[in-house]
Amino acid sequence: MDDNVRRHKYMLTEDQMPTTWYNIMADLPTPPPPPLHPGTMQPVGPEDLAPLFPMELIMQEVSQERYIEIPGGVLDVYRQWRPSPLFRAHNLEKALGTPAHIYYKYEGVSPAGSHKTNTSVPQAYYNKKEGTTRLTTETGAGQWGTALAFACSLYDMECEVWQVGASFDSKPFRKLMIEVFGAKVHRSPSELTDVGREFLKDPKNLPGSLGIAISEAVEVAAKDPKTRYALGSVLNHVLLHQTIIGEEALLQMAMAGESPTHIVGCTGGGSNFAGLSFPFLREKLAGKISPRLIAAEPASCPSLTRGEYRYDFGDTAGMTPLMKMHTLGHDFIPDPIHAGGLRYHGMAPLISHIYEEGLMEAVAVPQTECFQAAVLFARTEGIVPAPEPTHALALAIREALKAKETGEETIILTALCGHGHFDLAAYDSYLRGSMVDENFDEARLQEALATIPVVAG
Amino acid sequence: MDDNVRRHKYMLTEDQMPTTWYNIMADLPTPPPPPLHPGTMQPVGPEDLAPLFPMELIMQEVSQERYIEIPGGVLDVYRQWRPSPLFRAHNLEKALGTPAHIYYKYEGVSPAGSHKTNTSVPQAYYNKKEGTTRLTTETGAGQWGTALAFACSLYDMECEVWQVGASFDSKPFRKLMIEVFGAKVHRSPSELTDVGREFLKDPKNLPGSLGIAISEAVEVAAKDPKTRYALGSVLNHVLLHQTIIGEEALLQMAMAGESPTHIVGCTGGGSNFAGLSFPFLREKLAGKISPRLIAAEPASCPSLTRGEYRYDFGDTAGMTPLMKMHTLGHDFIPDPIHAGGLRYHGMAPLISHIYEEGLMEAVAVPQTECFQAAVLFARTEGIVPAPEPTHALALAIREALKAKETGEETIILTALCGHGHFDLAAYDSYLRGSMVDENFDEARLQEALATIPVVAG
Repeated sequence: MDDNVRRHKYMLTEDQMPTTWYNIMADLPTPPPPPLHPGTMQPVGPEDLAPLFPMELIMQEVSQERYIEIPGGVLDVYRQWRPSPLFRAHNLEKALGTPAHIYYKYEGVSPAGSHKTNTSVPQAYYNKKEGTTRLTTETGAGQWGTALAFACSLYDMECEVWQVGASFDSKPFRKLMIEVFGAKVHRSPSELTDVGREFLKDPKNLPGSLGIAISEAVEVAAKDPKTRYALGSVLNHVLLHQTIIGEEALLQMAMAGESPTHIVGCTGGGSNFAGLSFPFLREKLAGKISPRLIAAEPASCPSLTRGEYRYDFGDTAGMTPLMKMHTLGHDFIPDPIHAGGLRYHGMAPLISHIYEEGLMEAVAVPQTECFQAAVLFARTEGIVPAPEPTHALALAIREALKAKETGEETIILTALCGHGHFDLAAYDSYLRGSMVDENFDEARLQEALATIPVVAG
Repeated sequence: MDDNVRRHKYMLTEDQMPTTWYNIMADLPTPPPPPLHPGTMQPVGPEDLAPLFPMELIMQEVSQERYIEIPGGVLDVYRQWRPSPLFRAHNLEKALGTPAHIYYKYEGVSPAGSHKTNTSVPQAYYNKKEGTTRLTTETGAGQWGTALAFACSLYDMECEVWQVGASFDSKPFRKLMIEVFGAKVHRSPSELTDVGREFLKDPKNLPGSLGIAISEAVEVAAKDPKTRYALGSVLNHVLLHQTIIGEEALLQMAMAGESPTHIVGCTGGGSNFAGLSFPFLREKLAGKISPRLIAAEPASCPSLTRGEYRYDFGDTAGMTPLMKMHTLGHDFIPDPIHAGGLRYHGMAPLISHIYEEGLMEAVAVPQTECFQAAVLFARTEGIVPAPEPTHALALAIREALKAKETGEETIILTALCGHGHFDLAAYDSYLRGSMVDENFDEARLQEALATIPVVAG
């Protein structure tokens, strides 16, 4: 039993923690299409976004600078849980009998339990600096709501969260965690907003969706000059903040003396995948490494593999700018699955653009395969993953088993973006054998695609 | 907002992680009284314990060696989450307006979410080495059951957990977490054991207790030569394994350039408190430092402050050796409170002895004060604590506020032994204003004390 001690964990010191975020806009072969104002169909300017976001974040949204300095106040908070560990999954590899090496970057060590704090903290920070006293947002599984509530409690700001109705009902502990951090949680659709009241008129909207919750949070922010809105994924500045994951992982893979052949991450809005992979993509574009980048999306909501690359709204009520992205239609409501954080109709414009450019791949994974992977992972690696990253784990296992057959050198790096402490009901359903694979509603897709506004050009 | 960056976190590298546990038996001014065989009233020998524990743990239980080497295989697992961070609670200090410095050693970073893995891993390791194929145990709040299930999954052993009925009913997620790690969970009292069936005859036993659950797990282990029993606190070897917490904290306080004036920890069975404080007590006994050591116990189950120092059973059915300890009586069932991990009738013999020697103090804290402290802590430090360590936080806050009045130099070190992700129902009750302080049933105490066997001498 006393094998030579194997290195499981690669830790950076605080001094080695990156002090800049990486902006991939500076390195893309072609620029992504700009967001459009739905009234004028012209590119949106900073003034269009000012009611919703502080100017520093708007500037980051359109910045072409390769590196953006992380403010000292944000670094100070990051240091509570960063640098986060990179693990080599020796026990999982052994259980699979694979020659592949599997590494996972673990973001569940953050106070809110996921990677979302990497962006909630700077978003709250810049808002506080510009005089915002309240932030509104949506949350699905509750990871983002928790992360924003945490950040607002640190900066002494009010926080109101519209939680997707179905999650609100099935995950009371997530709501409680948000409340412990001092924020208010509303079930969406709610009676508190014009759009909420409108959606409530049709019973099919009762379970809610991320798109509806975004509409509600945006409406409240737009009406009050001291209130702004915060989004947990999709936008350029959100993806930017997450790149600290990949920057750290680059240094940690170098400590391990290996370079990944496969980088696998789950995608809902895209920020987790972008955070891990963009710094590696920079190195790939510079010709230094050549990993495959693979997004794992849920079979119920496969925006990259089944959506169309078109200009669409980010929310259901059509209050946001139009963004060019892979979309299933802004009123597409996916089959309820346990990975609530991945149930978004669209995909980050940056990820969509990179996918169109052929710089990455995507695979849709059904949920029972995900939970099979998750239970094996928990029993070998000792961490119970959130349902979202189990999609990436399932794909990592597919690749590791392929390597066993082909013998091809396979070094997989994946993002374990959060723990599943609030998702054990999903595990219960899997362990009792009552979980089924989700449906993908083809007819619903066609209906939803038909509602996307037509944009010339 | 960009203050000079303040150091919040003190991290050791893996190379700095201690490689020995500290055995305080080597340094005590007088030896603690030995455990007795209830039949012969003679000190128990290794052969008496052999049906329940592997020989290596029995030897640790009676060892007089000052330092015991941590096996390489255990260090290898420890490195998944150790060294654990030491934090300076700058934000909490600021909220309290206190000149006191507050440090907390955080064990919630472990895969099971508490300090319990520090001992579950070596216990499973030594058992595996000696051919055990199944471990049985009890669990109250569920932290220990989760930790042992985690360890057994790593060493590929079966694990059966008897969970105190009241916790089993009120904390389904804890049970699910244990099941995800592959262990079986039984509601205690159960129909599976002779003692369980006996206890079930009286309806007052239906909610169960730690003492009853221990009796059940011990019975099952005693009947099968390949099955052994694992205890999560109380015994010398368990306290020994936890000293890695204090050994790390000593090094980390040195990094911070400070020496604690107060060391505060919660006590149920005593392993968390011992783990943090014993290495500091070694330095105190050597005349190098002079911190006050203060145990925080729940007002519902105040074994140190209200119990008697007598020989008593560790379990309710009277199947264990008699241990000299502070006890409320082995059939004392405390008021149900949210800190299930502290509802044990006795106290570790080592802690009891040290308390009798005047080397430490104890204070009983009511639960609403604990949760008030916990919510303030969550909103300032960003971590939602388990109900157990909130007792220590409440006491730390009392001392910090005293320092504000007296101006006395106060450097508090406390153990944040676990997170509260599975305890949010308790926070809900506090936030909604429905939590009340627990009762301490004086008449019940007198009854329970009367059942303690009389031991001559």
